[in-house]
Amino acid sequence: MVMIGRRVVARMAVVWKKGMPSRNRGIHTFKDGEKCHFLMSPPLVSLDLPETWGSNSNYYDPQSIPKYSSEHLAATIDGKSIAEEIRSRITSEVCRMKEIIGEVPGLAVILVGQRRDSQTYVRNKIKACEEAGIKSLMTELPENCKEEEVINAVSSFNEDPSIHGILVQLPLPQHLDEEKILNSVKLEKDVDGFHPLNMGNLAMRGKEPLFISCTPKGCVELLIRSGVEIMGKNAVVIGRSNIVGLPTSLLLQRHHATVSIVNAFTKNPEQITCEADIVIAATGVPNLVRGHWLKPGAVVIDVGTCPIEDPSSEFGYRLTGDVCYEEAVRVASAITPVPGGVGPMTIAMLLF
Amino acid sequence: MVMIGRRVVARMAVVWKKGMPSRNRGIHTFKDGEKCHFLMSPPLVSLDLPETWGSNSNYYDPQSIPKYSSEHLAATIDGKSIAEEIRSRITSEVCRMKEIIGEVPGLAVILVGQRRDSQTYVRNKIKACEEAGIKSLMTELPENCKEEEVINAVSSFNEDPSIHGILVQLPLPQHLDEEKILNSVKLEKDVDGFHPLNMGNLAMRGKEPLFISCTPKGCVELLIRSGVEIMGKNAVVIGRSNIVGLPTSLLLQRHHATVSIVNAFTKNPEQITCEADIVIAATGVPNLVRGHWLKPGAVVIDVGTCPIEDPSSEFGYRLTGDVCYEEAVRVASAITPVPGGVGPMTIAMLLF
Repeated sequence: MVMIGRRVVARMAVVWKKGMPSRNRGIHTFKDGEKCHFLMSPPLVSLDLPETWGSNSNYYDPQSIPKYSSEHLAATIDGKSIAEEIRSRITSEVCRMKEIIGEVPGLAVILVGQRRDSQTYVRNKIKACEEAGIKSLMTELPENCKEEEVINAVSSFNEDPSIHGILVQLPLPQHLDEEKILNSVKLEKDVDGFHPLNMGNLAMRGKEPLFISCTPKGCVELLIRSGVEIMGKNAVVIGRSNIVGLPTSLLLQRHHATVSIVNAFTKNPEQITCEADIVIAATGVPNLVRGHWLKPGAVVIDVGTCPIEDPSSEFGYRLTGDVCYEEAVRVASAITPVPGGVGPMTIAMLLF
Repeated sequence: MVMIGRRVVARMAVVWKKGMPSRNRGIHTFKDGEKCHFLMSPPLVSLDLPETWGSNSNYYDPQSIPKYSSEHLAATIDGKSIAEEIRSRITSEVCRMKEIIGEVPGLAVILVGQRRDSQTYVRNKIKACEEAGIKSLMTELPENCKEEEVINAVSSFNEDPSIHGILVQLPLPQHLDEEKILNSVKLEKDVDGFHPLNMGNLAMRGKEPLFISCTPKGCVELLIRSGVEIMGKNAVVIGRSNIVGLPTSLLLQRHHATVSIVNAFTKNPEQITCEADIVIAATGVPNLVRGHWLKPGAVVIDVGTCPIEDPSSEFGYRLTGDVCYEEAVRVASAITPVPGGVGPMTIAMLLF
């Protein structure tokens, strides 16, 4: 309540501070020089600290894998074939939809700049749409385009009734205000589910989000389709990004799992993960999750896909997950491979 | 994506189903009678199951308290005196605000019906406002009023520039659409922080909610003011209501705690709570959390306030928390009493 008045006062303080030496600018004071105590206590909403994970990758040596049972090997959760099954079903649905209502869904993608990874992702999405019979449109804008141009592109798709979903490929070039651009996407076309209103509706009991981000949806779909019971299970989500970790933890809670969210500040994360029936790793740190982090029989979903130099591979690198697969496969009951696990599901869930 | 088209098809199916025998209404089929498989898989967003907690209260017998160390007693986190300190600071702030900008914050409360507990809560809030010099207005509506009347009351406060926060006292009578009414409160006056956009902004990194629900804010403020470090600590939130459990878990994550959320479906919740440095209980089940649920030295915040019959008490009942205080005080390092813990903080944080 008083916060609102406080904002007015704080604005006044800021106006005044302009005349002050810069070293004092951090201190909120009134014109009479008296300290403004109510702004001095630790911030209640806390600071947005960077998520810097300690990496295990330097220490991982395939020769040093602890001796797990050589008999036991986890089942593979085959994201590629599950995704294909979903996509083929979607293709029939789209076909049927065309027959019944004479229309197909339409996806618009906006790509800014020349990033090769973004180009690949966009190409794969468009290809998946084409294969499923979904209409897709793409707007490409140059790296140095103005914010206004991107927002205009979004607006024209917002108004286009044949477009049902709009994707702005991230990351955007640094000079563009990502939040402003994402917020300009109409809520009912926010196919990525990144809008805070969608996230709030995902978090709150009794509410329904219009869209849920594709990767979390893919992770939970992999569990469901592999026959993994979620309700009442202990699930740990490692990582808390807005795109994967957060919505995954919220979605698992909707499925009545007991969810723990491990972040980069967690001390001894393995003490928490080793109690979990389901572990979902989404940190981007290769091989962070070692075999001893897991409870025997746990189900492991690995969202990480980090390119690691490998002269023996065809392209000089291989994709590595957050989970040390060679160790985990000897402890877990089921695990997603990288590649071929969560990756293909993300695109399938975009179409879903 | 296809979901949108699916909604159109589903609507068509519903229209058609009206002519079907009611026993078939749960099955989504097309006009040709062919089953619509894409609607048959387990719902991804899951079902909204009731949160029914097993109660320990029947089994709690003060004579049966296990023998904990008689020397150790947890420090009391005195919510009453911390709240008084905050309220007195707010009073000075409001006074200063009046001097500087010639205005004070204004709170509007809408009370529908004659519930005695709601009347008490509202009276306490209005009294707290008066004591702090905050302007307060109240609209009382009869139990049987129309939804339109409540929304009109909200709208007029929405338009009133002297009102900065609007509280609709819950629960509302059953014939009123709570969600619709709460959503009619202007976002920038949603002092309860119940709007999904506020919740989404609380959940997402890099975003800021305009308001945070008062009780979660009170819990975290109690920790901060008691010198409890939150960052890197294991925190367990027991309960996941939209009003307390959910925003508390999100707020603790903003403070970089490793948060686990225990719900009514959690098997052996004590296995999770007994690893926690901070336990926040918000279930409404008296004495659910026993001494052996806690790690020695844990900090315990008890949000529960359940009236329990007690002929020896002045009013024939006493307020009981979710935590079995007599046991917990011998294990924890610090604990909030009930009453006098979180309760007074809720009102203080409303003014904050």
